[in-house]
Amino acid sequence: MTDTRIEDIRAQLFRVPLRQVMTDAKHGAHTHFELVTVTIRTADGHEGTGYTYTGGKGGHAILATIEHDLAPFLLGRDAADIDAVYDAMWWHIHYVGRGGITSFAMSAADIALWDIKGKREGRPLWQMAGGASSSARVYRGGIDLNYTLTELLDSIEGYLAAGFTAIKIKVGKADLAEDIERVEAVRRLIGPNTPFMVDANYALDVPQAIAAAKAFNPFDLVWFEEPTIPDNYAGYAEIAETTGMPLAMGENLHTILEFEYAFAQSRLSFIQPDASNCGGVTGFLRVAELSRQAGLPVCSHGMQELHVSLVAAQSNAGWVEAHSFDIDQYTTRPLQLRDGLAIAPDTPGSGVEFDWAKLRAAHDPA
Amino acid sequence: MTDTRIEDIRAQLFRVPLRQVMTDAKHGAHTHFELVTVTIRTADGHEGTGYTYTGGKGGHAILATIEHDLAPFLLGRDAADIDAVYDAMWWHIHYVGRGGITSFAMSAADIALWDIKGKREGRPLWQMAGGASSSARVYRGGIDLNYTLTELLDSIEGYLAAGFTAIKIKVGKADLAEDIERVEAVRRLIGPNTPFMVDANYALDVPQAIAAAKAFNPFDLVWFEEPTIPDNYAGYAEIAETTGMPLAMGENLHTILEFEYAFAQSRLSFIQPDASNCGGVTGFLRVAELSRQAGLPVCSHGMQELHVSLVAAQSNAGWVEAHSFDIDQYTTRPLQLRDGLAIAPDTPGSGVEFDWAKLRAAHDPA
Repeated sequence: MTDTRIEDIRAQLFRVPLRQVMTDAKHGAHTHFELVTVTIRTADGHEGTGYTYTGGKGGHAILATIEHDLAPFLLGRDAADIDAVYDAMWWHIHYVGRGGITSFAMSAADIALWDIKGKREGRPLWQMAGGASSSARVYRGGIDLNYTLTELLDSIEGYLAAGFTAIKIKVGKADLAEDIERVEAVRRLIGPNTPFMVDANYALDVPQAIAAAKAFNPFDLVWFEEPTIPDNYAGYAEIAETTGMPLAMGENLHTILEFEYAFAQSRLSFIQPDASNCGGVTGFLRVAELSRQAGLPVCSHGMQELHVSLVAAQSNAGWVEAHSFDIDQYTTRPLQLRDGLAIAPDTPGSGVEFDWAKLRAAHDPA
Repeated sequence: MTDTRIEDIRAQLFRVPLRQVMTDAKHGAHTHFELVTVTIRTADGHEGTGYTYTGGKGGHAILATIEHDLAPFLLGRDAADIDAVYDAMWWHIHYVGRGGITSFAMSAADIALWDIKGKREGRPLWQMAGGASSSARVYRGGIDLNYTLTELLDSIEGYLAAGFTAIKIKVGKADLAEDIERVEAVRRLIGPNTPFMVDANYALDVPQAIAAAKAFNPFDLVWFEEPTIPDNYAGYAEIAETTGMPLAMGENLHTILEFEYAFAQSRLSFIQPDASNCGGVTGFLRVAELSRQAGLPVCSHGMQELHVSLVAAQSNAGWVEAHSFDIDQYTTRPLQLRDGLAIAPDTPGSGVEFDWAKLRAAHDPA
């Protein structure tokens, strides 16, 4: 008999400089991302690592949640019964939880448990998570609202040269005419057959979003992402119904209840959960199940090194986002492309192994 | 000219033992509460203190949010423009926010700014917050699900002897018959004219809540609080419409958006925001304004030493809860009753001054 009880939990926070300052319409300039890792060991000697990340704020609070509220609660629990551990964590910190910091902390712990499960069972994540495929469509998402038009087009040529065959840019300039100019220039550069998305990071109100969606309609977008605040579920439906534009969101929904509201009310065309903030692998798979019931493709936000496995595994797989916060550069296996598809790792566990020395070298505590 | 820029911010965490172990239907046994204080000083020498509290989990994360994410962001900002500071904080930590830990942290900072404002202007909180009255109806809420029936009735006799003229008990026992027995015994004890509420701490599903509400109907309850999870906005409406029972909730709603959903969908009879987790004084006043538009009385959860001022000030004042987490015992002015009403302090500022020596003596870092 193996003893699958949790024996040790260790959390670490890394603050990693971005290779360049990135700007979107709502969060301003990003200079760093924060990575919080959780390494769990079970009594029979298996060890797994999970993680979450932020745009630069909240990392210390996530670390504190894991160290002070989750770790003491998880020690001694059965790491093999992940659903039970997940639900127990949810209720343990519910009063200060229901999304936000605690969702990020739970996500990191949950991913560590799935890493252990895969290593124990000798199975890669894409098999554990559904097994529909080991590869998925992928697009490169730029965080590029501050780029000049020339820099924007240069960056996209770089993405195409790197093997990406679909791209997303930020929109949400103060002047819609400037957004339109950028969308038009990018469409001209990539030609009519390259899938193309835009993302406003919820900078617009509903009337502004409707005007933008109408203006973007000639450019054959796959989707218009987060045109307005995700909490305005009914507002999304109004934008979709008024303009016919396919809409996407999900990175700012952190609880299964919020996803339920979005599926029921928002008339989305794509859903984009992020396992780093919606409850880890367990949370992502619960959203994926809801997306099948709703008849929507499930995509992902950020963390491409993990999401490639989770998206590929779904029968209703949408698109994996290859994000500019390139956590995968600090792993032993950065995202792999083949014929424009992202390839899931076949190694047992989550498939994400950190290059700890590289991470420590990049860490900027300032 | 006064210089109202924020010059210094100091946060502290206290873990305070409860006088006895308290149990409700969903959170299990409480042994401590956590108090996080934030003291802000402006360049012209005014100083104010805000605070938030938890049921024992999350305090370290709230402290980390204030120290690492809010304090550096707030330094140098204008403490006199509280609405602007509030909205700036909301967007600064939005990606890891929208409720949860960050709402608690923002709440503490916001209350400190109102304390400064009142001290600068020489006005008590009840005047700044609306000024309708300086006293409010109050009830004593027990956390007593673990009490034997005898202990329960003894505790209520103690509340009445202390001057309270309205009381609330916990329900949500595994066996509804036991809840009914307790409700019936309490009603018999307090007589037909004493206002009486019950609180299930969302332990029930909707069918269970409907059965309980029907069973409680003969006992003339003022409200049935949190019969089911607050996120199930439509479920509340179903319970209210099926049974006619007046419903209350709010302590688990942390964003103005969540309150909007509740007002629109839940058929509530009372709303119970908690300034410690819904955005401080600013957040509470925004909810109070929505409650007037919705035609509902605004009540409060916990933190009676502060909420007495906020509830009394509203033209649609409901009930102040006098909570068993008696933070007010660690202040220089515990809750004052007169003829069954709670009396708001007339001192400039929030009216809450901590007895720091008593707090430090009670602090249990274990």
